[in-house]
Amino acid sequence: MVFSLLITYEICVVCALSCSCTAATACLKLKQFFPVLSWLPKYRLKEWLIHDIISGLCTGLVGTLQGLAFALLAEVPVGYGLYSSFFPILTYFFLGTSRHIAVGPFPVICLMVGQVVLALAPDEKFIIANSTLNETQIDYEARDAARVAISSTLCFLSGIIQLVLGVLQFGFVVRYLGDPLVRGFTTAAAFQVFISQIKLIFNIPSTNYSGVLSIVYTTIDIFANISKTNFADLIAGLITLVLCLVVKDLNERYKHIMRIPIPIEVIVAIVATGISYGVNLEETYNAAIVKNVPSGFIPPVAPDVSLFSQMIVPAFSIGILAYALAVSLGKVYATKYNYEIDGNQEFIAFGVSNIFSGCFSCFCASTALSRSAVQESTGGKTQIAGLITAAVVMISLLSIGTYLEPLQKSVLAAIVISNLKGMFWQVVDIPRLWRQNKWDTAIWLFTCFASLLLDIDLGLLAGIIFGLFTVLLRVQYPSYSSLGNVPGTDIYKDMKKYKNVEEPEGIKIIRFSSAIFYGNVDHLKDGIKSIVGFDAVRVFNKRAKAKRKMNKLLKKKQLTSSKNGIKENPVTDEDSESDDDMDNYDGTKKKEGNTNYLNVQVDWNTEFPDCVSIPVVTIHSIIFDFGQVSFLDVVAVECLKGIFEEFQRIDVDVYIAEYDDNIFGQLESCGFFNDAIKTDLCFLTIHDAVLHIQRQKKGGSSHSVLDMTSHLQESSQLIEMKDFKELRPTRYLQSQQEEYRNMMTLKTENSPTHTGTQ
Amino acid sequence: MVFSLLITYEICVVCALSCSCTAATACLKLKQFFPVLSWLPKYRLKEWLIHDIISGLCTGLVGTLQGLAFALLAEVPVGYGLYSSFFPILTYFFLGTSRHIAVGPFPVICLMVGQVVLALAPDEKFIIANSTLNETQIDYEARDAARVAISSTLCFLSGIIQLVLGVLQFGFVVRYLGDPLVRGFTTAAAFQVFISQIKLIFNIPSTNYSGVLSIVYTTIDIFANISKTNFADLIAGLITLVLCLVVKDLNERYKHIMRIPIPIEVIVAIVATGISYGVNLEETYNAAIVKNVPSGFIPPVAPDVSLFSQMIVPAFSIGILAYALAVSLGKVYATKYNYEIDGNQEFIAFGVSNIFSGCFSCFCASTALSRSAVQESTGGKTQIAGLITAAVVMISLLSIGTYLEPLQKSVLAAIVISNLKGMFWQVVDIPRLWRQNKWDTAIWLFTCFASLLLDIDLGLLAGIIFGLFTVLLRVQYPSYSSLGNVPGTDIYKDMKKYKNVEEPEGIKIIRFSSAIFYGNVDHLKDGIKSIVGFDAVRVFNKRAKAKRKMNKLLKKKQLTSSKNGIKENPVTDEDSESDDDMDNYDGTKKKEGNTNYLNVQVDWNTEFPDCVSIPVVTIHSIIFDFGQVSFLDVVAVECLKGIFEEFQRIDVDVYIAEYDDNIFGQLESCGFFNDAIKTDLCFLTIHDAVLHIQRQKKGGSSHSVLDMTSHLQESSQLIEMKDFKELRPTRYLQSQQEEYRNMMTLKTENSPTHTGTQ
Repeated sequence: MVFSLLITYEICVVCALSCSCTAATACLKLKQFFPVLSWLPKYRLKEWLIHDIISGLCTGLVGTLQGLAFALLAEVPVGYGLYSSFFPILTYFFLGTSRHIAVGPFPVICLMVGQVVLALAPDEKFIIANSTLNETQIDYEARDAARVAISSTLCFLSGIIQLVLGVLQFGFVVRYLGDPLVRGFTTAAAFQVFISQIKLIFNIPSTNYSGVLSIVYTTIDIFANISKTNFADLIAGLITLVLCLVVKDLNERYKHIMRIPIPIEVIVAIVATGISYGVNLEETYNAAIVKNVPSGFIPPVAPDVSLFSQMIVPAFSIGILAYALAVSLGKVYATKYNYEIDGNQEFIAFGVSNIFSGCFSCFCASTALSRSAVQESTGGKTQIAGLITAAVVMISLLSIGTYLEPLQKSVLAAIVISNLKGMFWQVVDIPRLWRQNKWDTAIWLFTCFASLLLDIDLGLLAGIIFGLFTVLLRVQYPSYSSLGNVPGTDIYKDMKKYKNVEEPEGIKIIRFSSAIFYGNVDHLKDGIKSIVGFDAVRVFNKRAKAKRKMNKLLKKKQLTSSKNGIKENPVTDEDSESDDDMDNYDGTKKKEGNTNYLNVQVDWNTEFPDCVSIPVVTIHSIIFDFGQVSFLDVVAVECLKGIFEEFQRIDVDVYIAEYDDNIFGQLESCGFFNDAIKTDLCFLTIHDAVLHIQRQKKGGSSHSVLDMTSHLQESSQLIEMKDFKELRPTRYLQSQQEEYRNMMTLKTENSPTHTGTQ
Repeated sequence: MVFSLLITYEICVVCALSCSCTAATACLKLKQFFPVLSWLPKYRLKEWLIHDIISGLCTGLVGTLQGLAFALLAEVPVGYGLYSSFFPILTYFFLGTSRHIAVGPFPVICLMVGQVVLALAPDEKFIIANSTLNETQIDYEARDAARVAISSTLCFLSGIIQLVLGVLQFGFVVRYLGDPLVRGFTTAAAFQVFISQIKLIFNIPSTNYSGVLSIVYTTIDIFANISKTNFADLIAGLITLVLCLVVKDLNERYKHIMRIPIPIEVIVAIVATGISYGVNLEETYNAAIVKNVPSGFIPPVAPDVSLFSQMIVPAFSIGILAYALAVSLGKVYATKYNYEIDGNQEFIAFGVSNIFSGCFSCFCASTALSRSAVQESTGGKTQIAGLITAAVVMISLLSIGTYLEPLQKSVLAAIVISNLKGMFWQVVDIPRLWRQNKWDTAIWLFTCFASLLLDIDLGLLAGIIFGLFTVLLRVQYPSYSSLGNVPGTDIYKDMKKYKNVEEPEGIKIIRFSSAIFYGNVDHLKDGIKSIVGFDAVRVFNKRAKAKRKMNKLLKKKQLTSSKNGIKENPVTDEDSESDDDMDNYDGTKKKEGNTNYLNVQVDWNTEFPDCVSIPVVTIHSIIFDFGQVSFLDVVAVECLKGIFEEFQRIDVDVYIAEYDDNIFGQLESCGFFNDAIKTDLCFLTIHDAVLHIQRQKKGGSSHSVLDMTSHLQESSQLIEMKDFKELRPTRYLQSQQEEYRNMMTLKTENSPTHTGTQ
């Protein structure tokens, strides 16, 4: 408490001093911590003050009513809503970086506060046996005192959490609250608020539920008790609701004509109070009225530290959500008016505000969309408008507050509901979002349903985890595609999506759309199998089996091996083994021994005798397009190595193209390259790889080129590139690539000469 | 129980029938569920049987000892280890797809079972007051019975979980147990096992701890009670340990000479039993001996269903881990011997095995690395070797089991520890892994420490979550780099890594190495700012301010506007505002009004009067290389749109190159393109974009080309590409790109004619 007051005092002192501040760095630091110092000295008094005053007056009137109304959600006496609309503004004025948001209660946050309040101080705790009347009564005074203590302690604690997160520069947490998530969440929260306020409009007695499925229980409760409706409250509530909705719609529609929107909430509240007072609704119709609006300020109260342990989890979610909602709204205005919101400073600002106001029996502050919209649309330029708002609320508190006592609660509830319109309309996001992105729709819906059915903060947590999970899934199940050449260019495109692309003969080009890591290596293998059309291990086994069989036949003289291949002698084949992969089952060690008989070079693509069945492999090369592979881990490298080896032993060459330098480095550091898998399997572009393969397949001379290249790799002296280019134009890029690789290595070693270090 | 027996019976019947099976599809389905059907008929009796018998005998001897030893970890009487080494093999023979793993107890799994057993049946539960001796004693018989019931129920439950996961095709869960994670985890588990066995070697009394930090408490306990060491046990344990380690090392070193490794565990156990029996160690030195090895089989017992709810979580982690360890080992052998492991079938095999053996008082089975190594290295070819192993264990159970009763527990504990060597040696992974990949090292270390300090299954869960989190982080904090042209080519490479690349004048090429989503849009913005070197919003504000100021000066006639620019008239400037971003503060609406004065076109790169300070923008174009951007979400598209607009209003054109078709589709569906951001900002390659920009900057004629292109986009008839190419060679690719985009659209619409639908 004292600490907060000290800070406020300090701020004032610092403000006074700031004009004469000489040390520039200290001044900058100060400006960072007290953004008011950077904008207040440049306040354009003549231009802006009038706007700020008008805006502040409007926002103040709306804020007073909203403060009273939202207090219903926080389950504290409505008067405390006025405090919550007043105190946080004072500190935010000095510390906040947003110039347009109206700090104060926000329905969703109030609802979350209300849930904690109900859980820690339920009605049952305050039952006093009334022996004379032989029935139980609730000690309302004690209950309300306990509830105010809880809500203000919660406010204090979430302030501490916000301050700590701000000091630790945790502003980035707001990132995880993506737009679809926040919209889904607030829609669900709007429904929760709606259900909780409907009860007040009907003024029916009901139990207060909290926790999982509470919305369902409350709804059932409402329908069960609907016969006990108080019609005085219902009618007042419905009229208020209709009036507010219609006038707000008109305000919105004719905002280009009207400079100041009609403060319908204030008008309705005044009229309703008058009627209630005149007809004496409370006694005549048993209507629920506000009662006991405090007049003047209450002295600061220290928070109840003993409650901290019971509310640390909700304090965390309330603190972060209150911050996130305010910052995301602040960013919208900041973008519109070309200034910047400092995420960490906002954390500090809200933290200090909540610590400060928590000492004055307030509940947790954020910013209400509707109130901020009023502040901005009526021309508010800076937080000076906020100060005016606070002044208006203070006047209400000091003088006219008590006159509002006859106001019906159902009128306030209707005002709350009318403020939810925008949040409900977010439901129309869904079809648009569905067209735009299925994953985001999933996040929206999941967060919404989770927040509806689970507890509201549990739902938010579930939504955040789900959101991150969708990112993982997108990384984990990347799409893979087979590419073909766009005729006459060096461009390669998806075979499935483009009609006129041509696949180079005998070459498969496979593209992956994500990083490769332990979670998706199996997916990668399946992808390769489905694109290539055969299983390399199976083909190898089949070939080994065929070799064994042919050896047997050769021994039995049923086959004759000649220079042109293998001929079948006309003898019937008796022992036909079934088609299975139990073939090369003796293990790798014995394999060479078994194949020793067959000394002729087997060309697996020629025709074979009928008795020997081997799968046809129509390709001779595979190119992996690693253009979208942003990282690899050791499991991925190990898996790639396995894939390379599996294909190489069935005489299919595998190449890597379009790789990133980081990927190459990763492959190297994980020992990917060896005698069989050489670095010259890597090509800068797919086209280079294709040209190289085609050249190699045409003439056998390409081996010398390979030798040259490997010589180039090993030699410490760089061969003049130009000669190379003239000799072998298609290899030029490949050798260039070597040159750049060398360059790269050199650069890291800080050596100025061009010597290869491969 | 009856269910399991029925299955076994069925399998036998099916086996007998399989030879005459005629319906091919049913046969295939059967083969999938009973892999034995596919390999047993083709068993090469002459070649393989002798190998399998030798291997089975060796594995059986080792398995008997390991069964006894690992039972210590599971905290059940050692005899039950023999059951656990026998029953699971029987069902796995029929259902398993791996031919080389030795099914049975595995230390880490046993330890996890032991923790559950200790938690549910601690010693304190079985204290009986002994009034005559005036001290408390533990009812060992009741305790052990309860523990066996718990361990077998746990086995049954994890079997059910495995079976369900297998039927639901959840074999992919093993993906999340990446190699670094499993190695880190097993190293930690080895330490846990070591600590728990050290207690037995010293034979000191100690409390059994479980839960968080239990390893620390146990270690403290051991040191506190070290004075109570039983030296007979310690000496026997140490000798066993040294002998086992040395001989196993020799076995490994001379395995190319010896066909069968020395079964040192068996020899040591026999000798130790002899000594213990001869010297009567138990009575003479109070050594802890095995006692009560059951002879023969016990009748099946139904699991205690009432315990299910208390062990569902550990059953889950044990079930998955047991499966994962077996499958990962099985995959190693499968790769070596060229066959395939079916992940889902393995789940079913282990599920049925554990359900079956859970009914016979066994604890949960997996596969021990060391035992499988024995089975494979002694020449085991198929699970026939497994059957022989089971037979050997059965013989031990039926006849020689009781002879092992005098064996010291410390000898068994030493055998357990000697089996951990391989797992301890995994520590040397760390330096290698560090060189290869920092992230994987982090996963290794985190999982290891979490599993050491937290509970072992909690540690595993923490490791899995951490692993996924690292993937998220890698996606969330992608690297960004500025690219430059490799002279004379169309290749663009990282400016920082390559020395000789050249940045095209006035063009920045920015590359992102990851998908863009709500979690990293801020990072993206920061990246752009740091590469471009200025903040677009700030520049815009400065310019607006400068305009305002110049207007003021123009009005005051201190400046003269001419065709050549703006000249300063020699008058001192009095109201110099401080350098801040409070500039364009009146909002966007008033902006145009304010700039109306200045009718001359301001070229922001010419020299300005001293009194007007504006930041210098040296670039005119930015190209985003989207080559590695694998997906976008709506938040990302919104952010990109903002970036485009921010740069466009300060006259910097932004282009997208190397984009994937999916990305383009995503941009389109999210309404990215509008009048300001046209689709012709997208280029297939960076080089196309650069050529286009350079051409456009040289002559003003390029507008007509743009018009042509947009005409092309809008017209329903495709213009003949060839004419286009002749006219504007550098635009050729761009127009081609249009053609392919049209093609793509068409292909999805299944229309055969070439009409543009843009």
